[in-house]
Amino acid sequence: MPSFQRVSIVGVGLLGGSIALALGERQPDCKVTGIGRRLSKLKPLVESGMLHEAVDTLADGVAAADLVIVCTPVEQVAPTLCEALDHAPSDCLATDVGSTKGQIVGQVMSSSDTAAQRFVGSHPLAGDHRSGAEFARADLLESRTVVVTPVESTEAEATKRIAEFWASLGANVVQQSPQQHDAALGFTSHLPHAVASALAASTPAEVLPLAASGWADTARVAAADPTLWRQIFLSNREAVLAAIDQFDQHLAWLRTAIAEGDEAKLEQLLSEGKRRRDALGN
Amino acid sequence: MPSFQRVSIVGVGLLGGSIALALGERQPDCKVTGIGRRLSKLKPLVESGMLHEAVDTLADGVAAADLVIVCTPVEQVAPTLCEALDHAPSDCLATDVGSTKGQIVGQVMSSSDTAAQRFVGSHPLAGDHRSGAEFARADLLESRTVVVTPVESTEAEATKRIAEFWASLGANVVQQSPQQHDAALGFTSHLPHAVASALAASTPAEVLPLAASGWADTARVAAADPTLWRQIFLSNREAVLAAIDQFDQHLAWLRTAIAEGDEAKLEQLLSEGKRRRDALGN
Repeated sequence: MPSFQRVSIVGVGLLGGSIALALGERQPDCKVTGIGRRLSKLKPLVESGMLHEAVDTLADGVAAADLVIVCTPVEQVAPTLCEALDHAPSDCLATDVGSTKGQIVGQVMSSSDTAAQRFVGSHPLAGDHRSGAEFARADLLESRTVVVTPVESTEAEATKRIAEFWASLGANVVQQSPQQHDAALGFTSHLPHAVASALAASTPAEVLPLAASGWADTARVAAADPTLWRQIFLSNREAVLAAIDQFDQHLAWLRTAIAEGDEAKLEQLLSEGKRRRDALGN
Repeated sequence: MPSFQRVSIVGVGLLGGSIALALGERQPDCKVTGIGRRLSKLKPLVESGMLHEAVDTLADGVAAADLVIVCTPVEQVAPTLCEALDHAPSDCLATDVGSTKGQIVGQVMSSSDTAAQRFVGSHPLAGDHRSGAEFARADLLESRTVVVTPVESTEAEATKRIAEFWASLGANVVQQSPQQHDAALGFTSHLPHAVASALAASTPAEVLPLAASGWADTARVAAADPTLWRQIFLSNREAVLAAIDQFDQHLAWLRTAIAEGDEAKLEQLLSEGKRRRDALGN
């Protein structure tokens, strides 16, 4: 499998850093360039061996790359990708790790034909409510799912090589359309975040000392970065609203069963939830 | 501190079993009797050393007790407690571990004056979405909060001794009225459960393969026993409905901000959730 020799990572946070560490462990001959606005934050990552070099301008950072991975917040992904491909060698491929795909893929496709051929959207389903390169781990992607979302204009060879890239880091690769991906993630990632956030915000501060592991688990992802999540919600608006409405319906059923003291109905609804949760495993 | 010499535990599951193990470790002279309907399930717990004896009739099991701890599902707590105190020595104290307190305490108080004096409601904020003695741990209560809920008729000495009992197992004891407890737990425990259950039930089965740690955490408690939770919800109906309504309001605000693309409002709401979640720590 012809792997990439020079990988440029734009935005070295939890995911970008973990990709760099995984490459260092699994493909030590691959040269990893980290690109970010503040060299002062990247320099220590070169010293620690996570990156081979740190660069603060996109044009310079991708000039010799054969793969660019954009790990910026969702809103910046498409413009960053297009600018990167303008400065990269003509055979350089590009991907991203954005949590939503429809908007990003659409923006890249409409910006330039070259970008539309050489870019394959990706979303590694791995992460944390914490962010930052200091939490990066070489095994973050191991056995995790990475969704790749090629469209009609994407070159088949590009899709193949990007899928192989994620597989080479230990991930399980799944191929979907950007729309399929966004509809699914609306339920499996964005809805839980909305629910966790509303739970945390609606809990009066004075009762928090009586919160135990149930509250802590259910509200955990509310601790994630509000700016990143504002962007994710707004870039997948329709799917998120549909998921919230579906959830609302289920919560309303539960509420009615509780209000009416309907034991059979309440137990049936709770059993449905248990069945679905048990299906995932731990 | 004069501790109890003969403790009878009715219902040896996760909590009852963990109390038995903690007593074995910290107060090896204390004799622990396990009471349950099926001796075949209790016998192995005697063989493993968790219990000193196993008994299948309440009257026999509490005949020599100086403390009875009722660890049954919520609906059976009050009748079990009253029956136990009828058969126990006249100076025997009683407590329970039920997740709601107002209904249980009210039922015990109205049943007999003796019971009203010798019973102190308790709720250890420790548990798991798994149940059963096989998950019991000697340290389950260590550094956990136990709420004790005496009322006017409770003897002060009984409250003091029950509080000391939980402290002797390593717990932090908090004293509240049953109503304060139920209002708080409506938010910190029952609301998360309703939300987790509705999240799990509303997620289409076919997108579950794209669920990652965010969904798994947020929906985790939905895996708990539907019968136990049906009882908890219905025994704290008003507080649970109030908490659900508060949550609904917050989710509706989030939904509106997403639908209207209101970046500032959305980020403000997400920041509120983050602040509250961060306040709890891990």
